[in-house]
Amino acid sequence: MSGKFITFEGPEGAGKTTIIQMLEQSLKKIGYPVLLTREPGGIKIAEEIRHIILNPENTEMDPRTEALLYAAARRQHLTERVIPALSEGQIILCDRFLDSSLAYQGFARGLGMKEVYQINEFAINGTMPHLTFYLDIDPEIGLKRITQNREREVNRLDLEKLDFHYKVREGYLTLLEMFPERIHLIDASKSADEVYEEIYNKVKMYLFSRE
Amino acid sequence: MSGKFITFEGPEGAGKTTIIQMLEQSLKKIGYPVLLTREPGGIKIAEEIRHIILNPENTEMDPRTEALLYAAARRQHLTERVIPALSEGQIILCDRFLDSSLAYQGFARGLGMKEVYQINEFAINGTMPHLTFYLDIDPEIGLKRITQNREREVNRLDLEKLDFHYKVREGYLTLLEMFPERIHLIDASKSADEVYEEIYNKVKMYLFSRE
Repeated sequence: MSGKFITFEGPEGAGKTTIIQMLEQSLKKIGYPVLLTREPGGIKIAEEIRHIILNPENTEMDPRTEALLYAAARRQHLTERVIPALSEGQIILCDRFLDSSLAYQGFARGLGMKEVYQINEFAINGTMPHLTFYLDIDPEIGLKRITQNREREVNRLDLEKLDFHYKVREGYLTLLEMFPERIHLIDASKSADEVYEEIYNKVKMYLFSRE
Repeated sequence: MSGKFITFEGPEGAGKTTIIQMLEQSLKKIGYPVLLTREPGGIKIAEEIRHIILNPENTEMDPRTEALLYAAARRQHLTERVIPALSEGQIILCDRFLDSSLAYQGFARGLGMKEVYQINEFAINGTMPHLTFYLDIDPEIGLKRITQNREREVNRLDLEKLDFHYKVREGYLTLLEMFPERIHLIDASKSADEVYEEIYNKVKMYLFSRE
């Protein structure tokens, strides 16, 4: 496999989507074949699995069932989309991957990072991202960025979410200690242009050093 | 949890269904509350997961995705049906469980028993069967029992299956070595009455010794 698998992590409001799109344009301009994707990525089986997870009627869903379903959808997206693109030598930019499950379900929901890592190890079977960018932002600022579009005050429900997102952040910071080579901490409180510049430079450095 | 969780394993044609039904009647007669079940057992989320696994259109299904989906359906059946019945003190008779995944997918399909055990450990989270009966039969005899109902000769496809079922049997025999306390080997080439007697006696002995 000659391609490179780059993943982007962080809370909503950190600006992942914008940065990934800017990066896609820049890498294409300098001649790299780029695939932008996110789970379930239009893969039929993975979409069907996500449908079960997200179906609001499925109120009885056990957190472990949910974690196994996410791992199953991940596996299918990986085999049908990511691995073929890797063998073609493409640069894959993937919005969220393994680390999201570890931070959200393993850490913040309390299933255990080690436990969630084990089922995901089975799912990815060795296809780890080469590079991961964690866009770090204070959850309160991330929340404000999102709610600004909604034109309303922060309410009790948002604050509950805020507490949850502080736990998610703690999970990501734990992952940074576990995978210091792979995961790069990016200060996402800066402007989109600054964040993009920093990531673009790191990606170029990584790609050039491996050519 | 005061109930007992008893599972039945073995190939099609070994006579599991008949034996479990006879056992259910006998245990009810002597006053035990009995729940007869099998995955997905009418559990909505588990049924939805099975639908994805069994959908003939899903030809792209990766074996690891399939194993994760089986584990997810198992988890949901366990939390919604088995665990509540266990807390009510019922005797659960379950047609196939964890060991089927280990023998069929882990061993015969080559995913690795240890690997498939790990994702199932996550799924069952400590709720192991108290007692398991493996109904052992030479795959050729099991096949004949099934094909007798079809009134035709054994063909090439059946023989391919036969080879697969010899691997499954080897998988089960490996499990017997791994879990000698829990799994009981039953010679299912005997008559249904003999097989039933042997299992009924072992179940009674187990239940009486724990009262």
